[in-house]
Amino acid sequence: MNITDKLKRFRRGPAVISPKDIGLIITLTGINKDSKVLDAGTGTGFLAAYLANICKEVITYENRKEFYDIAKFNLKDFKNIKLRYKDVYNGFKEKNLDLITLDLKEPWKVLKYAEKSLKKEGFLFCYLPTINQVELLLKETGKFRLIKLTELIEREWETDNRLRPKSQIIGHTGFLMFFRKS
Amino acid sequence: MNITDKLKRFRRGPAVISPKDIGLIITLTGINKDSKVLDAGTGTGFLAAYLANICKEVITYENRKEFYDIAKFNLKDFKNIKLRYKDVYNGFKEKNLDLITLDLKEPWKVLKYAEKSLKKEGFLFCYLPTINQVELLLKETGKFRLIKLTELIEREWETDNRLRPKSQIIGHTGFLMFFRKS
Amino acid sequence: MNITDKLKRFRRGPAVISPKDIGLIITLTGINKDSKVLDAGTGTGFLAAYLANICKEVITYENRKEFYDIAKFNLKDFKNIKLRYKDVYNGFKEKNLDLITLDLKEPWKVLKYAEKSLKKEGFLFCYLPTINQVELLLKETGKFRLIKLTELIEREWETDNRLRPKSQIIGHTGFLMFFRKS
Amino acid sequence: MNITDKLKRFRRGPAVISPKDIGLIITLTGINKDSKVLDAGTGTGFLAAYLANICKEVITYENRKEFYDIAKFNLKDFKNIKLRYKDVYNGFKEKNLDLITLDLKEPWKVLKYAEKSLKKEGFLFCYLPTINQVELLLKETGKFRLIKLTELIEREWETDNRLRPKSQIIGHTGFLMFFRKS
Repeated sequence: MNITDKLKRFRRGPAVISPKDIGLIITLTGINKDSKVLDAGTGTGFLAAYLANICKEVITYENRKEFYDIAKFNLKDFKNIKLRYKDVYNGFKEKNLDLITLDLKEPWKVLKYAEKSLKKEGFLFCYLPTINQVELLLKETGKFRLIKLTELIEREWETDNRLRPKSQIIGHTGFLMFFRKS
Repeated sequence: MNITDKLKRFRRGPAVISPKDIGLIITLTGINKDSKVLDAGTGTGFLAAYLANICKEVITYENRKEFYDIAKFNLKDFKNIKLRYKDVYNGFKEKNLDLITLDLKEPWKVLKYAEKSLKKEGFLFCYLPTINQVELLLKETGKFRLIKLTELIEREWETDNRLRPKSQIIGHTGFLMFFRKS
Repeated sequence: MNITDKLKRFRRGPAVISPKDIGLIITLTGINKDSKVLDAGTGTGFLAAYLANICKEVITYENRKEFYDIAKFNLKDFKNIKLRYKDVYNGFKEKNLDLITLDLKEPWKVLKYAEKSLKKEGFLFCYLPTINQVELLLKETGKFRLIKLTELIEREWETDNRLRPKSQIIGHTGFLMFFRKS
Repeated sequence: MNITDKLKRFRRGPAVISPKDIGLIITLTGINKDSKVLDAGTGTGFLAAYLANICKEVITYENRKEFYDIAKFNLKDFKNIKLRYKDVYNGFKEKNLDLITLDLKEPWKVLKYAEKSLKKEGFLFCYLPTINQVELLLKETGKFRLIKLTELIEREWETDNRLRPKSQIIGHTGFLMFFRKS
């Protein structure tokens, strides 16, 4: 079954990163079937599922029991995902990663672990709903160099009777920060 | 080498589909390492290269000699791309495709071939710079059902001294139309 | 009382042109206390009230009884507004106008009257929700030259706890077309 | 002569606030022919000229000699503008103002003067290119209550051959902050 059809059956939980934003993660980091990715926090597993559809292996961390349970259900058929019930702020020991994706309140707390776990020139992606988080992260980037701070605004059109952009849209999902390990 | 680094060495030619738009193609169609994709026209090969990074096989058509030559150079190291010097308006015979991506002036001319070449529930993507093309395509969709007509606006931020969105941005690349074969 | 406070007491009716769009009408046409403006259709009178706040005289036409009644109530204290219960498609005879604002389904039907009623170099503004209307109007502009076809997207920010753009926004109000009489 | 035609003859200088943003100032504050407005800094006088076109009186402050000279030239025919060569950070004594517009690096420095000069329920507008300025201003609003923090993105369309949004646009001018005196 196509991943997009599988995702429609996912149990709902915390807000997910939207396909437009996941798409940019994929193209700007160039991940592919040889890539090993670490993802935290898992949430419903929406991002982990998309990454697993493309990559060799995805390790994903979630420390809230209610989200972990949702993710466990949603990701049970994804053979190349390792779901871990752990607090990523306490560190992780994976090595030789191509990409780390962080959808966390305080991503700066794991930069020291991210540095050790990523390959040289590996990518770090942070998803940040508020500009305050962006500012705090910019102050503590360590050995990471910022590739891009950006946002994507999706403007869907109606085609039913007349052709026009939709009135009600999502004007903001999150700020997208892409880093590369020097 | 990471695909994003490879792409920086590509010879320039006609305008390419941007990473934000390619990203949405990948996430909305759910292509992966088992997918077989047909792409036309090739242009510089930028989209074909991105697709090949993720898919099993990409067949790409270009009928303009100057673009074909650029693409041939750019795509020479991509083992899973078949570059064809042919006019896609004259048809194609590939079967069992998961996705067809059309960056053509008159995509409606190939819908009849696309229908035969795609799997059931396979995806058709059309990239259309003008709204006039969107209107013409909406009139001739045949057995395809429209999943989404949308645009992505990227808003990059400057971080050098002060934090602010960039003044000069690309306000429009193309309208993105996603169809699925019924 | 400030006009913005008055407008909060207006009876609701059909959708109004938003302050961002009315603002651009004011700045791009340069109307002021010497200006005479014709407005159709009136709707709730929201645009007419804003124009009257700045201009010498506003004549506004509405042919639907239910909207006319709402407008009559809303505009009763505006001494420089003449509200007319008439179908503007049947023509109008005002002369020497500085600006005509049309929020109509088929504005092309009144261009011949608009031409006669406007001053030389006077402005015509059309508010068009769909791109189909834009296309039809572009085909029949007569002696008007297009100054600008544009849209404004408002992106409001939340400041309550954290600083971030609002999630739910209005992604489209209408296409704004500004013409000038040659 | 129409103000928009006059403005085309203005001498160029520092960046001006754009018509879309000036339009929103006009509609959200409801200024009209009875309004008295203070504006700082003047820059080329572009905003002051627009305000003067609508209001009774505009007092505008500029402390940089090169900008003051440009503004003096540009505003010489505007009878209801008082241009002052003074540093607004040192205070001002106007009373009973309807609106104060601040296009300054550090607008928080003049809030104490603004409070005394505005009428009850008068409006304060601040134009801020960076989000850092927005944050600093949010911390020191005193007796002002925030009405709105917003941005306007203008998306102009091309109509020459085909109908499409322009490729190159201005993605950001400034953050617009509207306050009202309690």
